[in-house]
Amino acid sequence: MAETEWNKLGAYLKETQILGSIQSTLYWDQNTGMPKRGASWRSEQLTYIAKILHKRNSSEEFYDLINSAQDEYLSCQEISLSKAIIQSKKRNIELLIKEFNRQNNLDPELVECLAKAKARGYESWQEAKKKSDFKIFLPFFEELIKLRIEEATQISDKYSTWETLSQPYEPDLTLDWLDNVFQPLKKIIPSLLSRLKNSEKHYWDLSPTSQHNLCTKLLDEFGRDKDQVVVAKSPHPFSITLGPEDYRITTRIVKGEPFSSFLATAHEWGHSIYEQGLPSQSHQWFAWPLGQATSMGVHESQSLFWENRIVKSKSFSKRFFKYFVDEGCSLNNHSELWKSINHFQAGLNRVEADELSYGLHILIRTELEIDLIEGDLEAKDIPLEWNQRYEELLGVSPSNDREGCLQDVHWSEGAFGYFPSYLLGHLISAQISSKMEKEIGLIDNLVENGEYQKIIFWLKNNVHNYGRSVNSMELVRKVTGEELTASYFVNHLKLKLKEFC
Amino acid sequence: MAETEWNKLGAYLKETQILGSIQSTLYWDQNTGMPKRGASWRSEQLTYIAKILHKRNSSEEFYDLINSAQDEYLSCQEISLSKAIIQSKKRNIELLIKEFNRQNNLDPELVECLAKAKARGYESWQEAKKKSDFKIFLPFFEELIKLRIEEATQISDKYSTWETLSQPYEPDLTLDWLDNVFQPLKKIIPSLLSRLKNSEKHYWDLSPTSQHNLCTKLLDEFGRDKDQVVVAKSPHPFSITLGPEDYRITTRIVKGEPFSSFLATAHEWGHSIYEQGLPSQSHQWFAWPLGQATSMGVHESQSLFWENRIVKSKSFSKRFFKYFVDEGCSLNNHSELWKSINHFQAGLNRVEADELSYGLHILIRTELEIDLIEGDLEAKDIPLEWNQRYEELLGVSPSNDREGCLQDVHWSEGAFGYFPSYLLGHLISAQISSKMEKEIGLIDNLVENGEYQKIIFWLKNNVHNYGRSVNSMELVRKVTGEELTASYFVNHLKLKLKEFC
Repeated sequence: MAETEWNKLGAYLKETQILGSIQSTLYWDQNTGMPKRGASWRSEQLTYIAKILHKRNSSEEFYDLINSAQDEYLSCQEISLSKAIIQSKKRNIELLIKEFNRQNNLDPELVECLAKAKARGYESWQEAKKKSDFKIFLPFFEELIKLRIEEATQISDKYSTWETLSQPYEPDLTLDWLDNVFQPLKKIIPSLLSRLKNSEKHYWDLSPTSQHNLCTKLLDEFGRDKDQVVVAKSPHPFSITLGPEDYRITTRIVKGEPFSSFLATAHEWGHSIYEQGLPSQSHQWFAWPLGQATSMGVHESQSLFWENRIVKSKSFSKRFFKYFVDEGCSLNNHSELWKSINHFQAGLNRVEADELSYGLHILIRTELEIDLIEGDLEAKDIPLEWNQRYEELLGVSPSNDREGCLQDVHWSEGAFGYFPSYLLGHLISAQISSKMEKEIGLIDNLVENGEYQKIIFWLKNNVHNYGRSVNSMELVRKVTGEELTASYFVNHLKLKLKEFC
Repeated sequence: MAETEWNKLGAYLKETQILGSIQSTLYWDQNTGMPKRGASWRSEQLTYIAKILHKRNSSEEFYDLINSAQDEYLSCQEISLSKAIIQSKKRNIELLIKEFNRQNNLDPELVECLAKAKARGYESWQEAKKKSDFKIFLPFFEELIKLRIEEATQISDKYSTWETLSQPYEPDLTLDWLDNVFQPLKKIIPSLLSRLKNSEKHYWDLSPTSQHNLCTKLLDEFGRDKDQVVVAKSPHPFSITLGPEDYRITTRIVKGEPFSSFLATAHEWGHSIYEQGLPSQSHQWFAWPLGQATSMGVHESQSLFWENRIVKSKSFSKRFFKYFVDEGCSLNNHSELWKSINHFQAGLNRVEADELSYGLHILIRTELEIDLIEGDLEAKDIPLEWNQRYEELLGVSPSNDREGCLQDVHWSEGAFGYFPSYLLGHLISAQISSKMEKEIGLIDNLVENGEYQKIIFWLKNNVHNYGRSVNSMELVRKVTGEELTASYFVNHLKLKLKEFC
């Protein structure tokens, strides 16, 4: 390769990417293979890698490389480079500078305090959850809030405090925009929920082996390439990319929830397919910002698409019923399977929530954390507020903190601004699905004919291959020709709910 | 911790150990979980880590730290430190200097050439083995021999060329010493073999699930702590330590060899138990030379002990026969199980060889590589020589190179001097076992009563906890009060063979 400034920057980024992917491999092993007592040494390994990565990402050398590469392409842009290449170089550099500044504006002392506060937060949250006692977590939670507000102040870009914290997950997100998109749902979802006939969930289950077999069958059906995508079990399902041709997904078995591992597999497959579709995953490109996912909302839209639009579709139940029967499922026909996998019932738990009430779980969390970071809400009042808002919006009330405000891990690590991505994902998925159906036919028909490769091909060409060249809002505009709106999501739900009212 | 020179060196070593254990984790994942197409990126990660490790291990900073730490303990040894502490510090420093010099004497150009030659050697060997054609491997093999001889010359310590190459596996090994220990076996083993009744191996097998269950049962029986020792499958069984409390072992299923995975599990368990018993595996000590295994021969002695002395004992067959029956084994009684697991028959394959003929496989390889490195044997004549010596010593002759000189991986990576460790392991295991039986009773009785913890306790206190404070020959002297001799091994075999003649 020619010894240009651009290539020198590329080589630097590649080394960073190698380190990052080593970090991911350690994380993967920690969650899928490591024995319990390996935890303490693993944390030493991870701390070591994090330290080197932080150093690389905020080094003077890196800063100089970015600037030289920028100068180089600016100086020759009129002579030789095509407009598209200049555009992609410009965007790569912009994103690198943005991230560099974010890192560089931070006082190293704060970075260290935050790392420790996150570790303590996570630890105390685990204990608090176990004992179902928010008070154990409270002092650490307060410290985390204080430090993250300080962090946002130091970064001091054009955004408000909470907005600043949400940027790594959803670039360019603003409170006004979010309010505009989310507010209609706060009324529509409860009104739809109230129309539902009250149907108690019928208890049944499948053996772990049967669930494992169904998950394998599902991935075979979707066309998984075993030489590229590996599956394992972990306490919490996740998807991770360890190299340009090395994708891993996990699932877990939950007792009494026969669809849990199955839906998690579809969900993580969606994340993985997005990563697999990112532009030109050659070793070189893999390291540049444009080769990455554009936002957590878009990521969730892709996982939710496979979980909710594909696996929860009628024709999928029709197609897959026989495999469920083979595995000992006691349901009588595919219609019962469809109703069971789509069972609607407002509950306390976000992760096991149905497609409809899920949004309310997110609205509550989003509003609570905005009130915490920018409003008058005090951390000590979280349990009370949490329970009140659940009662108000979902009509259910947690009987303890474990079922309530301690259920999610996010706040224990100070991850504020993350929750909206889940609901944005539902909205983006619905809006993109509608466009897809106009172009290649109804999902129900595609699934009926097993045309998954056609779907993947469309997603890759119309969504995935943008990488980070545009942010999520612009991506939605480019794909669908419209601003993001909740109406596609609401229409999809209304249509489905007809059969449950 | 006090800011002494000693602690500064310790901190440096710990960082090296963190990197080394990350390298091991990548290797573990590569062999147990990674999808095929992840190989290319994984090799980039491993090359990156190897580069940093080499830099750390031959840096001026490291050299200065070793010297400062040495000066420090020399200057205060008469005032405050106990004799034992001085002794251990002295030994640590000696080993560090020895390794540093080995690294440092090498021309970096040669190091790079060797790395490439090893990669090419391995690659061409794979192809040659697949096509069963030594000629494909020959030019790369010749290159490897040339470079490793050059390496030995550059290291230029007091040893001969082949001896120098064997030092990393068996410190202080000399050709004279080895000849003295091995030569008697060259006559005794064939004479014992000739006395055996010719009994064809009866073909039977167990399902992979049954084999898996038996391996799990075996480790439960031995008292595996699941929070510390994890098991997986890999193409070639191995044992690896990823942290002070993180041990992994693998096994594999071989069709038509119902004991293969079972014996491999026992073997790798032995390696792991040795590592688990090394002195004070605290995070600090883990990094120092004295916390490591002393030689490959001793390592093999520990794995072979569990494979051959425990699992192939009569009382073990008696104890475990019911579990084999539970898993569908068609043998009629524990005596048949014992005869089957101890089946003696000279064959072509080292890895699946019995306890008796195994030594001959090693003698042939050891002599061939000494002749290659120090004698007149030319690489091109290896197939012919290999086949002749097999005919002569084992009475069998390979029908092609794959069955013959291409079966093992070692030479493909230029690993000369490794093979003797396997046979030394048999000898050390037998001699140590004899001492152990004098102190805590006959192995057959211990196994009959399930007293595995008593055995582990004895091994830990009498063998493992020496770490690298003594070399393997001195270890044998310390444990047994005698020089290493083949006679314990021969006696053990004679006793067993009585029932087969």
